[in-house]
Formats: sequence, structure tokens, C-alpha cells
Amino acid sequence: MVEKPLANHESQRKFEIRCPRGTRDYGPQDMTLRRQVLDVVTECFKRHGGVTIDTPVFELRDILMGKYGEEGGKLVYDLSDQGGELLSLRYDLTVPFARYLAMNKTIMYIKRYHIGKVYRRDNPSRGRFREFYQCDFDIAGSYDLMIPEAELLRIISEILNALDVGTFEIKVNHKLLLDGMFAVCDVPKKHYKAVYSSIDKLDKLPWEDIKNELCNEKYIHCDVVSKLETFVRLREHNNSLTNLDLLNWFEKDETTSQNNDIQKAVSEMKQLLEYCELFGILSTITIEPSLARGLDYYTGAIFEVTLKDCSEKIQIENGDSDKETRSINIGSVAGGGRYDNLVSMFLPKHKVPCMEDVRSKDTQVLVASAQKKLVKERMKICRLLWDNNIKAEMALKANPKMLDQMQYCEEHKIPLAIIVGERELEEGILKLRDVPSRIEQDIPRDNLVEELNRRLKHLQ
Amino acid sequence: MVEKPLANHESQRKFEIRCPRGTRDYGPQDMTLRRQVLDVVTECFKRHGGVTIDTPVFELRDILMGKYGEEGGKLVYDLSDQGGELLSLRYDLTVPFARYLAMNKTIMYIKRYHIGKVYRRDNPSRGRFREFYQCDFDIAGSYDLMIPEAELLRIISEILNALDVGTFEIKVNHKLLLDGMFAVCDVPKKHYKAVYSSIDKLDKLPWEDIKNELCNEKYIHCDVVSKLETFVRLREHNNSLTNLDLLNWFEKDETTSQNNDIQKAVSEMKQLLEYCELFGILSTITIEPSLARGLDYYTGAIFEVTLKDCSEKIQIENGDSDKETRSINIGSVAGGGRYDNLVSMFLPKHKVPCMEDVRSKDTQVLVASAQKKLVKERMKICRLLWDNNIKAEMALKANPKMLDQMQYCEEHKIPLAIIVGERELEEGILKLRDVPSRIEQDIPRDNLVEELNRRLKHLQ
Repeated sequence: MVEKPLANHESQRKFEIRCPRGTRDYGPQDMTLRRQVLDVVTECFKRHGGVTIDTPVFELRDILMGKYGEEGGKLVYDLSDQGGELLSLRYDLTVPFARYLAMNKTIMYIKRYHIGKVYRRDNPSRGRFREFYQCDFDIAGSYDLMIPEAELLRIISEILNALDVGTFEIKVNHKLLLDGMFAVCDVPKKHYKAVYSSIDKLDKLPWEDIKNELCNEKYIHCDVVSKLETFVRLREHNNSLTNLDLLNWFEKDETTSQNNDIQKAVSEMKQLLEYCELFGILSTITIEPSLARGLDYYTGAIFEVTLKDCSEKIQIENGDSDKETRSINIGSVAGGGRYDNLVSMFLPKHKVPCMEDVRSKDTQVLVASAQKKLVKERMKICRLLWDNNIKAEMALKANPKMLDQMQYCEEHKIPLAIIVGERELEEGILKLRDVPSRIEQDIPRDNLVEELNRRLKHLQ
Repeated sequence: MVEKPLANHESQRKFEIRCPRGTRDYGPQDMTLRRQVLDVVTECFKRHGGVTIDTPVFELRDILMGKYGEEGGKLVYDLSDQGGELLSLRYDLTVPFARYLAMNKTIMYIKRYHIGKVYRRDNPSRGRFREFYQCDFDIAGSYDLMIPEAELLRIISEILNALDVGTFEIKVNHKLLLDGMFAVCDVPKKHYKAVYSSIDKLDKLPWEDIKNELCNEKYIHCDVVSKLETFVRLREHNNSLTNLDLLNWFEKDETTSQNNDIQKAVSEMKQLLEYCELFGILSTITIEPSLARGLDYYTGAIFEVTLKDCSEKIQIENGDSDKETRSINIGSVAGGGRYDNLVSMFLPKHKVPCMEDVRSKDTQVLVASAQKKLVKERMKICRLLWDNNIKAEMALKANPKMLDQMQYCEEHKIPLAIIVGERELEEGILKLRDVPSRIEQDIPRDNLVEELNRRLKHLQ
């Protein structure tokens, strides 16, 4: 289309020319920057075997309602009833993904990423928006506990390191730890949600304000609130607690040691810490018992990522044309958690699996093993490959079957497999398999990255 | 986020799990294909000096209303009034672009592309959707007539050739030809819009149906309709008419030769044909007096592109899960036109120009000239460069100033300029200028592409 915008017509403007509240335009320079950032994110998602999907920007209202909890539900943009279906704009990319899985019952396993805009009819403070991008990576399927969680945290670390945003902290908690704490403190079940949303503010508000909100606005008994304080301010009151100290405290404390939910959460989070160490990201992790993400659909580990040094002065624009320079705290830049039941809310039964057969992922190498108890060895090799920008995956089970792993390579047209076994470990070698020809070759472990890069260059 | 979707919960589903009507999901394979197509489009847009912007998916309702004419207005999705602003989803990317220009008064010239979803609350037939992507390229600024139009048609040709979709036809008409025809036939002014939308259907319906609609549904006098028939069926009744024959007919016919609008349109379209020949795309162009695109904002040349051999059997899916294989006609795949007044509807006055200063476009070479009357020589060189995948631009004025052209290079960090002049033409050479150092060198015209590729490789 062609346009000559500068013809000097005398038509008068009868209305205000601006973007809707909480939205803004992105000019060519903004777009160049956005492209650079999203390229880093996409590259990392692909490095971990992600495939992408797209879903409509609106969903049937019935599908969205009730999935976001009290807070979220209020912030959804509804479309007018213009004599058709009742629709609402998506609030996140998670519920649409769950709906997608429910409609595509043949998908048994998927690592999908989705980069798209979401809509929140919030009253945004400066620097926050009602229309903004989310970059989601979700791992769906039946996997062994904390392996997918650890990979997700690794993905976040890779992206934040690549974007060079300074120091960051990944706060981790567990829904069962929260539930157990509430049970131990005698929080009435019907008030769980209200209490979650109050204690989640502990990183922004002093305890006095939260206590006040709980006692005087939400009418939680003061004894209950006092008991809660012991748990949620544990870190605050014990500056030197390591993650393991904290988990051990919950394991041994006389009240919490009796609670099954808490003991389960503690044991799972210990496992997560071990995997995070293997993935080289342990230093960024903080177990934080006051972290309580609001969305109703979480069931296991939850996490939230904050930037440490982001109180610089930045220039912000807020839909209208005035700009101002002030210092703001960006706060949380990523978050998520395990949600086991969201798909099954849509899906009463599941059907027989059937993998897709066109290459839709970029994975170059699968890290496999022929024997049991080698999950940690596979993790170490994955870490090495990711560190060297090789697109690598491993089965997210502790003891996957060799046949399943090789089938996965063939189905997804992954050209190479690294096979680690006990003999190989002893001898300091690895087996490198060319998937199409099934020809295997032993290579010294120290040459792994070099040899893979050589082979991959050949394959292009 | 982590998910295990297959936990076999017995929660029952109370509502239908599907996408909204006229929308669909795109799985990993669809997305791979989409990415490939959009990469071709983006690459071409950048080759022509395009920069990209992004605007919100909804706009203030007042801004959208009245810009799409009778038809379009009805199909806009409104958001509910939830105690804030009245908003609607965008129907195209053109009105948001005009609004963007009105808000960014310092932009005097821009070639912007925008690839994004638009929303039409249509009753879509199979294979059409209510949510779909548009890939827009718009050229804004004060340029000489038909130069930007010709470049746009060239862009479309490049993309369709690269996508290998078979033969295509670019139908071209002119708003002033239509207006003139209507005046000559005594169509009452208040019925123009109604008549446009009827005759635009001539490629799908027989004349009898259209005549019926005009006479019996829209109450246009039968004599008027008979006169119109002569013009809009001109091609149909004279199979062998070339584009030039057709324009000459309008130039000489006793009624149309008296109408200023028609004569202006004819002369402009002749100019367009000449430029299209220089750009190597003349064989795809058909001047078609019955083409009448519905949108109210067009003021000059309008065009629409159809695929010739697309009645193959294709598999289509329509939001719900059933697929069917049938033969459909894809119809129009691109369209547009000149709209001179859309921005000024928002913008009573314009301000002093001010170019942006961060590199936001990929252009590698500007094709410039130091003397007048060399627009066609610049076009020939541009064509050669585009044919060889070099990202090239030229000033879209017939006789631009040398200083302006060099300033454009420096502002947009375009590294190289080709300068054509009379002396160079005589000697079969071109001047190649390194923009940062301002060092110029004569090179034989036949070596142009080779030399540019050599230099560009060095610059990376």
C-alpha cells in the first residue's frame, strides 16, 4: 500500500489520538532490540529441543474462567457479545497450551515454546503494561520428578546470562510446603488463597503490613498469623541459612516433621538442588518459603526470578507521549511452576500416543544411556553441550529404555546420539552414534565437543 | 513451567473444548512452514529498505470507526466495556499505521513493514479465518507519483516468485477512473459505495447477478447500470485488449475523454506501466476497470493479486477438528492501494522532520544520481540488484537532490552508494561510493553485482 501522509488536509480531529491505556507502539529501533532479545530466547529454547505452536489471541470465555484464581479472573479482557460466542483475550499462554493438549490427545510428550502477547486488564504502574510479550517454555509428559524442573531453571539461567542483565536470583518454593505450612499453622482451608496472596508480598512490604492485612482485612486469627511468621520469615531471621540448612530445618522441626506434605516437598527440593548443581546453576537458586505465586493451577515446585541490580535509572514511556527518567525496580522477570492437573481438567481420559513425523525441532544430539542410574552422567554431558551452544536433549526420566531413546531420535530426526554407559565411564570414552546409519564409534570424552562440532558442520 | 498432563483425574469437563469460530491452532509443523514463508517475506521487505514497527492488537474504538467503510465497520470485534476505554481489535494494519504516523509527527518518510494478526468478525467460509496474519509494506512520505506504487508491485512479485506459488496476476485500477466512470454514467454520488461493492464482485459472479443487485436491491436506475456495463465489461467484451489499448480507449472514447478524473487516472496508469516494465514485472500486470476494493480510504491506484492455478485439492481445517480434502479457489492473496488522506484525518498539521539515528534497516546500497531525468536508470539498476538479492533502495522521487540522497545513506548507515550520471552512462561505468569514507571509484557496469558482493562480504 502507498501513502502520502503529509497532504495538508484541514480535516479536524474530533477524538484523542493515542494508544489504549497500558499499551504502546514499538518503533523500528525498539523492534531491532526486541528481535535481538527474542532471538537469544528462541535460540536457547531450540537448544533444549523446544518446538513452537501458536494459538488464537482469544479463547472461549468458559475455558479461561476459573483457571487463574481470584486475582487473575478479574483482570481478563472480555470481548463484547456481538451475537456469537463469549470470548476473552488470553491472560497467559499456559491455559491455551493446556487446551491445545486437551484437543490434541495423541501428543504424549512435548517441549513447546510459545512467544506471544498476553493481556491483563490491570492498573499498571509505570513501566508495566496491559499488553506484553511472554516467552513460555513448557514440558508436558510423564517424566521423573525434578528433572524437567531442573532443565527449566537451566534454560532461564542460560537466557539471562546470554542477555547479560546482571546478577539474578531464582527463588524456589513448593506448593506442598506452602500447603503443609498452612495446615500446621491451622489456616482454615477456605482462606488458603487469600493467605497465599498476602505472604507473596513479603519481598515488597514489611511483615507488619502483611500481618495487618491478614489479621484486619482478611480476618485470619492472630495466633495463626504468628505461627506463619516463624516459617515465612525464616530466611529473614537467619541470614546465614543455606538452602540445605533451610530444608533440614523443615525436616527436623517438631511441628513440620510430622506433616507429610512438607516432608514430600523437602525431599523433592533436595533432589532439585542436586540436579541444579549438575547443571551448573546451583549458585543462582534460593529456596524461599514465603514465595507463593498466585495462580491456582500450580501443584508442585514453583519459582520466580528477580534481577539483583536493576534499580538503575531507565527511561520509560507509558502509552501516552510523555517520557520520564526515573529509577524503578523491574522485579520479577520470570516465573512458573509445576501444574499437573490443568490439562486433565479439560480432558477426562487420554488416548494412545502417536508422535508427529515431520521435523519440527532443531535438536542435534540426544544424550542417552543404555543402563540405569546414569541420569546424573547424562545431565553432566548435557550441561557441557549446552555450555557450548550445541542443541542437545536427554530423556527426562531417571532410567529411560534404550529403545525409547533411539526411537525418539528417529522420530524427531535427531542426527546424532551420545551414549554413556558404565564401561564408557570407566574408560573415559563415550559412544557417538550416527542415527540414520546406526554406526557407532568410541571417542575420548575430552574430545566430545570438538568431535560433535566437526560432525555437525558436515551434516549441514 | 512444568506440566504432567496425563495424570488421570476424574474431573469432568463441563464445557466444549475448542478454538473460537474462525480461529485455529498452529502445531509445530504448521509453525515450521509459517516461519519459512514469513522469512521469505521479511527478507524481501528488508531488501527494499523496510523497517518494522509493532502496534497494540486493539485500538481505541473511535480511531477505528468510520475508516473501513460500511462493510468493514460491521466486522470489527469490540471489547466489552469493563469500566475503562472503548476498544476494538484491529481489522487491518493500515489504520494503526496511520495512527502511529499521526502520533509520531517527526517521521517524514518511512518504508515500514508490519507482520501481524488482524481480526474480522466475518462469517468465514471454509479455508478463511477470523484471526489471520497480514504482511503489510507501506511507503509513507511525499514521493513522485507511481514510483512507490511500482516498487510495491515489484515487492509482491518478488515474494510470490520466491514462494513458488505458480502464475499470478496483479490487477490494477485507479480510484479516479472508478469515480470518473461513475460520474460519466450518472451514478448518484451517495450510491458510489454501494456500486463499488457490487461491481467488485464481477470476477466471481456473472454480470446478470450484479445487474440484478444494482437495479433491484440497490435501486440504481437501469440506464445507469447499462452505461456502467460498457466500462466494467470492457475486457470481457474485447478479449485481445492490451493494457495500453484499454487505457487508450478511455483516453479517446467520446464520453470518458471529457472527464478530468478519468484522464488523470489514465495518464498515471500509463506511467505506472512504464515503471513496471523497468522493474521487469510488466507481464504480471492487468489494468482492470472493474476492480473496486471496498475500503473507503483509497485515493489513487488500487491493486489486487490473484493466483492463477490454485484450484488444486488442498486439505483444510476449520477450527473444529474435522479435516476435509476439497478443491477451493484461494482467490486474492494480496491487495492495496494509495491512501493519501488517512493520516491527515488524524493529523491537522505536520511538524519539522527529524530522522532517527540508530540503524534500524538493513539496506546495503542506495542507488543515487547526481542529475535530473535519471529515474529510469536508477530503476534499472535497482531491479538488477534486487534480482541478485542485494538490499537496495532508491529515492522515490523523479529528481532527488544529491545531498538528500547522501544524507539518507548517512542517517540510515547504508554503507554503499551507486551513483549514476550521464557521463557514466555514456562510458558504461558507475560510480561506487563508500559512504563512511566518501571515497568513490569507477567500476564497469557489467561488474556491478560482482563488485558489490565482494565489498559487502568485506563489510560483514
